[in-house]
Amino acid sequence: MATMDDIARALGITKGTVSKALSGADDVSEAMRRTVVEKAVEMGYSRIARSHAVKKICIFILHMAYKKPDDFGYDVVIGFRKAAEPAGYRVDIIELDDATQRSISYDEFMLRENYQGALILGMMLSDPWLSCMQTCRTPAVLHDNRVRGNPAVADVGIDNDEGMHLAVSHLQSLGHRKIGYLSSGLRSYVYQQRYAAFFDALRQSGLPHHSGLAASESHPADCVRLHLPRLIDEGCTAIMCSHDQLAHEAMLCAAGLGKRIPQDLSFVGFDDIPLCRSTEPPLTTIRQDRSNLGRCAFSALLNLITHVPISMLLLHTDLIVRDSTDAPPSEQA
Amino acid sequence: MATMDDIARALGITKGTVSKALSGADDVSEAMRRTVVEKAVEMGYSRIARSHAVKKICIFILHMAYKKPDDFGYDVVIGFRKAAEPAGYRVDIIELDDATQRSISYDEFMLRENYQGALILGMMLSDPWLSCMQTCRTPAVLHDNRVRGNPAVADVGIDNDEGMHLAVSHLQSLGHRKIGYLSSGLRSYVYQQRYAAFFDALRQSGLPHHSGLAASESHPADCVRLHLPRLIDEGCTAIMCSHDQLAHEAMLCAAGLGKRIPQDLSFVGFDDIPLCRSTEPPLTTIRQDRSNLGRCAFSALLNLITHVPISMLLLHTDLIVRDSTDAPPSEQA
Repeated sequence: MATMDDIARALGITKGTVSKALSGADDVSEAMRRTVVEKAVEMGYSRIARSHAVKKICIFILHMAYKKPDDFGYDVVIGFRKAAEPAGYRVDIIELDDATQRSISYDEFMLRENYQGALILGMMLSDPWLSCMQTCRTPAVLHDNRVRGNPAVADVGIDNDEGMHLAVSHLQSLGHRKIGYLSSGLRSYVYQQRYAAFFDALRQSGLPHHSGLAASESHPADCVRLHLPRLIDEGCTAIMCSHDQLAHEAMLCAAGLGKRIPQDLSFVGFDDIPLCRSTEPPLTTIRQDRSNLGRCAFSALLNLITHVPISMLLLHTDLIVRDSTDAPPSEQA
Repeated sequence: MATMDDIARALGITKGTVSKALSGADDVSEAMRRTVVEKAVEMGYSRIARSHAVKKICIFILHMAYKKPDDFGYDVVIGFRKAAEPAGYRVDIIELDDATQRSISYDEFMLRENYQGALILGMMLSDPWLSCMQTCRTPAVLHDNRVRGNPAVADVGIDNDEGMHLAVSHLQSLGHRKIGYLSSGLRSYVYQQRYAAFFDALRQSGLPHHSGLAASESHPADCVRLHLPRLIDEGCTAIMCSHDQLAHEAMLCAAGLGKRIPQDLSFVGFDDIPLCRSTEPPLTTIRQDRSNLGRCAFSALLNLITHVPISMLLLHTDLIVRDSTDAPPSEQA
């Protein structure tokens, strides 16, 4: 672990200047401050090592609601805190905006604020900090994103592959042979995973699996309007959806087309958001255990902090059977 | 958590009989003992819950050497113990034979011996206990095996996908365009993963990726003898191997065919077993961090024990560059 002396020597400046730069003192120029911070990050300097009293980590939240119990992030944050705080970590919640990501790198931010590591929730492929994740040295756990080859970064999520197999097996056991798939746009890591897992599940179950059985669009309303009638015409008796909100839209559209759910057409969602209990009928889906996702994210982060280079940590999923699935029309009494 | 009273009530017998059966007393028939143990497992009874003094877990070892520092299992076991013992767990090592697996189920064994969970190293697809893993209730962490849909079982290993991408990128950066792949038999989960990851890496790198570039055989000697000359005739300038031992055999064979390594043909292995440092020339490979595998396996097991249903935990890999890889003949000065 590099010391302030090491940094001073490497830059040919005094330790006093290093100390001032790292503490953000006014009498150090912005250019010098940047030079010192960048060198400190490069050399693996950490202020934490000098004080065992404070162990600080944070959760960055982007593009995700988390304040109310029904919000996706709510239970994740609570699960994380419940694991982190008894282990002696203070957890700060930071709503990360685009301007902050553009003004400072992830490593610099973490060094400046004295954080040992972070969970990052809701990051999208277009977020500036995603590129920081390729090379950062401060531990980071990403939810539903994959960064290859950086030992300081881990991906935490659910086992989408297992979830998709559970859903397809459930539909197959009810008697469905032709299952369609409606997906959100495929520019997201998690929807790419689920799309591939759907076809993998069809193949392994011996069911028809030509690419015409699936469709993806960025906007749920477009996806449903453009593709649901075609899948029905194809003879699909069940529709798997990449996420619950899309399944909800698809059920509304199917009802508009005069289809009874589940008598004429079964639907399965993914995630088990609270909405699933109040759709008409209530939606069969694959559950993400958000509280345990939070606990696992802390477990992964603690491993990264202690130099165990976790790449990926996935949680088991559950099939939650409600009223939107039943046998196909041909098999009903 | 079920108590002895609950079990007695469920079976319509006295608590005294339950107690005797669970402690293996002589005056309870074998049939009654089995009935009680099975019901206890089914109801989630654990003797552990009643005593906080002893927390026992174990490592089952099958088909794997672990006693000497060069053995694959050695560092895994040490890494596991180093994490488990400070956390208050006693770790027993059990060499598991076929007869034991056939005489008792995993759950029954664990209940009888008072273990809270286990790491299982070296289990093959043909081992009797692999089927127990589909339904067991006692936490189990498997190394390099995948069981879908059981929240009590996790898979721990390295990120084979990442490792294969690192290897292919390395060869591509040296100038190789046509890369062949020699693999162990594909009836093993880990070799299936690596095979798929190899082609995925070729595709993502924009390199030729037709199936004729790969071959698999159960016996390394057969694999090399039957397929290496063909890959050379195909124009491959580099050979990726599914594991180091196979790469070693392939290099010996290539030398016998008059090929200079790496001037005429480059080789990359997988695992970084100690042999890699003494092959002729030393072998470029992908490292499995065995000590951290052990630590991670404990981390996963502890999560399962505390009801965090981890499905998969993968470690980052490292590319270890030695002398078996260089530019292809066409690009050498």
